[in-house]
Amino acid sequence: MLTKEQWTRYNRQVILPQIGVEGQKRLLDSRVLVIGAGGLGAPVLAYLTSAGVGTIGIVDADAVEMSNLQRQIIHSEYSIGRQKTSSAIGFLSQLNSEICINEHPVFLSPENAKDIIGEYDLIINGTDNFPTRYLVNDCCVLLQKPLIDASVLKFDGQATVFLPGEGCYRCLYPSIPSRSIIKNCSENGVIGPLVGMMGSLQAVEALKVLLRIGNPLSGKLIMFDSFNGEFNSIKWSKNPKCPLCGDNPTITDLSDDYGINCETKQIDYSDEWDLDLETLNNMRPFPDIIDLRDNVEFHGKLPLHNSKIISFEEVLIQFESWDRERLIVFICDIGIRSSALTEMLRSKGFKLVYHLRGGISHWL
Amino acid sequence: MLTKEQWTRYNRQVILPQIGVEGQKRLLDSRVLVIGAGGLGAPVLAYLTSAGVGTIGIVDADAVEMSNLQRQIIHSEYSIGRQKTSSAIGFLSQLNSEICINEHPVFLSPENAKDIIGEYDLIINGTDNFPTRYLVNDCCVLLQKPLIDASVLKFDGQATVFLPGEGCYRCLYPSIPSRSIIKNCSENGVIGPLVGMMGSLQAVEALKVLLRIGNPLSGKLIMFDSFNGEFNSIKWSKNPKCPLCGDNPTITDLSDDYGINCETKQIDYSDEWDLDLETLNNMRPFPDIIDLRDNVEFHGKLPLHNSKIISFEEVLIQFESWDRERLIVFICDIGIRSSALTEMLRSKGFKLVYHLRGGISHWL
Repeated sequence: MLTKEQWTRYNRQVILPQIGVEGQKRLLDSRVLVIGAGGLGAPVLAYLTSAGVGTIGIVDADAVEMSNLQRQIIHSEYSIGRQKTSSAIGFLSQLNSEICINEHPVFLSPENAKDIIGEYDLIINGTDNFPTRYLVNDCCVLLQKPLIDASVLKFDGQATVFLPGEGCYRCLYPSIPSRSIIKNCSENGVIGPLVGMMGSLQAVEALKVLLRIGNPLSGKLIMFDSFNGEFNSIKWSKNPKCPLCGDNPTITDLSDDYGINCETKQIDYSDEWDLDLETLNNMRPFPDIIDLRDNVEFHGKLPLHNSKIISFEEVLIQFESWDRERLIVFICDIGIRSSALTEMLRSKGFKLVYHLRGGISHWL
Repeated sequence: MLTKEQWTRYNRQVILPQIGVEGQKRLLDSRVLVIGAGGLGAPVLAYLTSAGVGTIGIVDADAVEMSNLQRQIIHSEYSIGRQKTSSAIGFLSQLNSEICINEHPVFLSPENAKDIIGEYDLIINGTDNFPTRYLVNDCCVLLQKPLIDASVLKFDGQATVFLPGEGCYRCLYPSIPSRSIIKNCSENGVIGPLVGMMGSLQAVEALKVLLRIGNPLSGKLIMFDSFNGEFNSIKWSKNPKCPLCGDNPTITDLSDDYGINCETKQIDYSDEWDLDLETLNNMRPFPDIIDLRDNVEFHGKLPLHNSKIISFEEVLIQFESWDRERLIVFICDIGIRSSALTEMLRSKGFKLVYHLRGGISHWL
């Protein structure tokens, strides 16, 4: 069933009863698409190649830059200026020359997404911008492809899995935060090995989904606060009112505009303490969004993108040690706790503290 | 303070206020030793090099083998047969040529450990065998070096941090499991991207300790069950009775024998359902050790190496779906729950179920 070389190469996983020779054959027959050969894509591509996923596609239109090398470990100084897909192939083919790697050196767009995604069994999102994230999500739902999602910002990482019929990114976050969202979240900074962790987690999940073993993170959002070394998870479920995968979908095909090429709008929010959701979504630099709700309140109403969960009581314990120039937005269920904390911190000399008016309930 | 190239290269982390130019300078001035250029060492080395840790030492006496490439992503097909330290340098110097990398192509031993470890500010354990783990731990305590530890087996990973004065590996696990422990746990199988996750987590923790930011995982053991997608953490604390770092230590220098070169002893344990601790430690293949205790019972008495925590009630829910040929050892506090489950599963046709006689309390 396996060649002698395959047996030697994959031995450490073939001896696991959950994988075995059958599982290895299944991996060798699988086709996975990785969107983005950047920070998340690097470990995803490296570990799927080393595990013997037989066919791997890479979508990326960018060239390697010096600033990528802080976290994108499959590229090298010699690759600077070279197409990322080509640089990635150089690395991966030396790691495992029996894997077939397809280059898609293009920007994913509503025009080409179905053709590219349609070729693969499973899709992994390693993109760092929201418009592409929604485009990939919509296309995966329309084509019934499993999608492994992750995102990283500063010291925080998130990951989850969307299996066909079990919900999608729009069940969690119904619409693109704003047409004027900045293109690339990496402008906000990130630490390299955290991206390594989240990308490796995506690869773990991909193997589980391909092998049909274990419990994939479907319906479960993992959140890792690496600064404090804390893992949290939130259960989510398919939203019957989801505009894409719900009972009465309003999105039935890819839109022709995901705002992929839009510009950043500068917004002056300095005179108001209570924000509406659009203003919050447009704040630059990204604020630290602190969600004061406890776990039971999350049901069906997930935290905002990249928010951090800290209880009201915990804020009261911690805030004296915080930088008074820190840009913070508190959110809670109906806006009472967030308003109280904002006023209190303003009175203590915090200059850049805001809250979401009316709470998350008002906006979702 | 930083050169133009450094500013460009490290920009994505320098813009984080927790790092900044000062932090980057500190990283460039740091010296980190990575023990093992294997599965854990690969992401540790890649991400510390890309983050700009100025001097990195690598200890590894082995050569690259084909079976390493399933998870050791810094090596390649062209490196097979080559010294791992040399192969690692080839990779790392292309990722960041301004880092100074020291090769230590030797087995770490009681004779050379102090000289090698003494050269560095922080030590990262990427070894896959217990004797070296204890040797590294003992040496780090004697030389007052922070140590970042992790281990991976099958689908499970663990990680923690030992800071000088805040406890050590022997506070968690007082003595080497057995002189006849097998040399290399990878014989039990492991999935590659899980090793990637745990190694990346070690690199995250290393950056935090070097930069003196955030909350390192000192006093906290992270356990990740990747098969089920579940993170757990257990708090531990310095043990005043620790033979190495406690109030009255009995270990005051490196021993001359950590059993680094011992052989595996074959033990026949098939006729007894209740095991003593030595027999349990010598079981090969490694059993699935299921710890039935709940969190409160862990205080000061941590689970055995690589055990998995499943409650008594949860076992009753799950076991019907388990493989009846699975090698399982139940442990609990005083041996009552473990004995009851063993008898029950035996009566249901499970052939390889055992328990630890008298519970963990009896042996620790």
